[in-house]
Amino acid sequence: MQKSLKIAVVGSGLVGSLLAIYLKKAGHTVHVYDRSPDIRKIQFSGRSINLAMSHRGWKALDGVDVGDKVREIAIPMDKRAIHLKDKLNFQHYGKEGESIYSISRGTLNRKMIDLAEEAGAEFFFEQRIWDVSLAEATLHIGETERGEWKDVKYDMVFGADGAFSRIRHRMQRQSMFNYSQEFLNTGYKELNIPANADGLHKLDKNSFHIWPRGNYMLIALPNLDGSFTCTLFMPFEGENSFAALTDRKSVEDFFEKNFPDSIDVIPKLAEDFFKNPTSTLVTMKCFPWTFEDKVALIGDACHAIVPFYGQGMNAGFEDITVLYEMMQQFGDDWTTVFSEYQKSRKPNADAIAELSYRNFMEMSSNTADEKFLLQKKIEKRFSEKFPDKWLPLYSRVTFSHNPYSEALAIGDKQNEIMSKVMQLPEIEKIWDSEAVENRILDLLK
Amino acid sequence: MQKSLKIAVVGSGLVGSLLAIYLKKAGHTVHVYDRSPDIRKIQFSGRSINLAMSHRGWKALDGVDVGDKVREIAIPMDKRAIHLKDKLNFQHYGKEGESIYSISRGTLNRKMIDLAEEAGAEFFFEQRIWDVSLAEATLHIGETERGEWKDVKYDMVFGADGAFSRIRHRMQRQSMFNYSQEFLNTGYKELNIPANADGLHKLDKNSFHIWPRGNYMLIALPNLDGSFTCTLFMPFEGENSFAALTDRKSVEDFFEKNFPDSIDVIPKLAEDFFKNPTSTLVTMKCFPWTFEDKVALIGDACHAIVPFYGQGMNAGFEDITVLYEMMQQFGDDWTTVFSEYQKSRKPNADAIAELSYRNFMEMSSNTADEKFLLQKKIEKRFSEKFPDKWLPLYSRVTFSHNPYSEALAIGDKQNEIMSKVMQLPEIEKIWDSEAVENRILDLLK
Repeated sequence: MQKSLKIAVVGSGLVGSLLAIYLKKAGHTVHVYDRSPDIRKIQFSGRSINLAMSHRGWKALDGVDVGDKVREIAIPMDKRAIHLKDKLNFQHYGKEGESIYSISRGTLNRKMIDLAEEAGAEFFFEQRIWDVSLAEATLHIGETERGEWKDVKYDMVFGADGAFSRIRHRMQRQSMFNYSQEFLNTGYKELNIPANADGLHKLDKNSFHIWPRGNYMLIALPNLDGSFTCTLFMPFEGENSFAALTDRKSVEDFFEKNFPDSIDVIPKLAEDFFKNPTSTLVTMKCFPWTFEDKVALIGDACHAIVPFYGQGMNAGFEDITVLYEMMQQFGDDWTTVFSEYQKSRKPNADAIAELSYRNFMEMSSNTADEKFLLQKKIEKRFSEKFPDKWLPLYSRVTFSHNPYSEALAIGDKQNEIMSKVMQLPEIEKIWDSEAVENRILDLLK
Repeated sequence: MQKSLKIAVVGSGLVGSLLAIYLKKAGHTVHVYDRSPDIRKIQFSGRSINLAMSHRGWKALDGVDVGDKVREIAIPMDKRAIHLKDKLNFQHYGKEGESIYSISRGTLNRKMIDLAEEAGAEFFFEQRIWDVSLAEATLHIGETERGEWKDVKYDMVFGADGAFSRIRHRMQRQSMFNYSQEFLNTGYKELNIPANADGLHKLDKNSFHIWPRGNYMLIALPNLDGSFTCTLFMPFEGENSFAALTDRKSVEDFFEKNFPDSIDVIPKLAEDFFKNPTSTLVTMKCFPWTFEDKVALIGDACHAIVPFYGQGMNAGFEDITVLYEMMQQFGDDWTTVFSEYQKSRKPNADAIAELSYRNFMEMSSNTADEKFLLQKKIEKRFSEKFPDKWLPLYSRVTFSHNPYSEALAIGDKQNEIMSKVMQLPEIEKIWDSEAVENRILDLLK
């Protein structure tokens, strides 16, 4: 057990709440601050993408025995349901029994705050942190940025306050702080497929539904109440873009033409389209993540990524797993805990940022491509026969605890091999032959 | 002539002052703000690297007829003087008559402010701009960030306030604003070679002096008073680093061992070493650079680069040349002026950032490498014989007005060609043969 400290966690999101549970478990006093009202008491925002919990997320939850509570609100998805214009394909994510889990962000966040309160963390909502004095671990809180502030001193401050973190904002003004934020030209909008009258799901509930259309796509993830949370990803400008859909008719025509099988299941299409905001997607990187033994960033606050690998929350939760390992290893030497934590996590955060960025192409274009699906089938077959020689990239990211940086490097090598394999004459006919198998074994040498 | 506007320029540095002259010439009222005292009334900071004015800089100065005033304080350097441990090599920069010009930053800045005042711009020093309201082009000025502010409204605001621009800081908080800052692990420190008692330079005054030593280097640029401003570039940490030089003796031993011919000419070595700060080097990129027809960033405020190509000021001055072209083309349509300005400049700013970053290697390592110098000799010979077929990269950047992005692209192609040429057997012997010439002509096809 570490020496008990008074710790502030800024941000009551998923990472902030789970971190609070870990810190309580380690014997600290934990105050969690959020500038927003208590999410348990308000309607959600209409700008959410459902979460896809996978191995890394579950490990962090199970580490403080709250995994089973979360499993109660999760729906397993063992495959992609790929809605082409004229047919529906299915593509399994992993091996038999391997699934990712759809969870509504709002539902999970409420649950996590409940669990953190049960663990003894105290929450302070509608408290705006405008600044932090790094060397003194002191929060500056007030109604407005230019108004009066009160100062609250802690032994340590965690910034779990997301992509637009105020804690990081202060660190950013230090010399030698590397920082980048890059917005995609693609935005997103939440839509909804309600449950049937009998409460059942209108589409297969154990699938991640995807309508890949090149530079835009629609996805749908199941909720417990029989509904699906849908997300339309599309460029802001150009031919098929948010800018081009300016009225009810243009929206309805666009869906009719491009997502014909969605029309019957999204009854409030135009209404939701114009009610819900169009949100931006940003990749944010920075370094360092910590200041002495006083302040540490965690989750989106130090590595915000685009959502196309479903790893944003999982990566944030894995930060906590690694931080906790360092706490166990280095005890009260928080300077070392923090420096080893950031050293371990930074290359992995960069790798999952890169993988997530690339995965937009995979989801929105490649899943509609027969050749790509064949490649995945060959990989799967080979991996099942030689599990110690080939773990597909998606599985390594999603169904393993191997570092993301390793997944990126090995994935690139596998891709080189597969691009050679796919050039074999008549690969469509011989894909499951021993010749193909031997070629891969050769190339692996 | 455009409709006369009331324009604020934030930053009285080189770019801010020259921009003020251009805006006055175009008929506007111009107020220049700076948080620092009037540089004409204070000692300079001991953290400066001498400037190397080249074609792009002169063009911008000559565009408002102040080039000749600046030539009076500039010293031509037509070559590198490369101080190896056992000998001195010279390498000419360009063709006969082509030079870069050494100018002390302080001297130039004082001159530019004088010239801008003569042109009718008004300067307001020790005025701290903390924030700007973008849509209203209103500056918020006050003693402290949290204290009382007064608001001053303009028709338009230019942020010429450098790498840590407050104007950009506000734009950065807009959605869809891309931004990155990346610090080098190499820092720099100013040192000084004073004039001889007779006022003459201790080293050749028409050379850019460089002591290349791998991951660190010393440079010296001449001043009018017979002195040289020296800059030591070195990693912050590691074997040969600022961290390793902690007392007089370690500094003196280090220079004795690594820069033996500098010992006699830098009399106050240890004193200056510990008096002058160790400064950081940052590359900063962002986009967009403008907000509607109200606010525009210019110079380091939107593209801070490392100093290894000597193009920081030149690139900032070229921003002004391009902005002025757009003003002439689009008149009072400032929205178009601004959008065309940033569209034209952004790829070139990115290119010179990349070239400058790469040039540290060229200066600190390659100039000590015989093979590299031979390559440059071959390029020079070929370029003199076929001037329409080959303009060396350095010349394209320094002695031309071709876009930086073109220089980067063509430079990469030339490098590919030269790496093949350098692999020819016995290239050291046949370098000036027709065979080599023909090989280059072949590869250019």
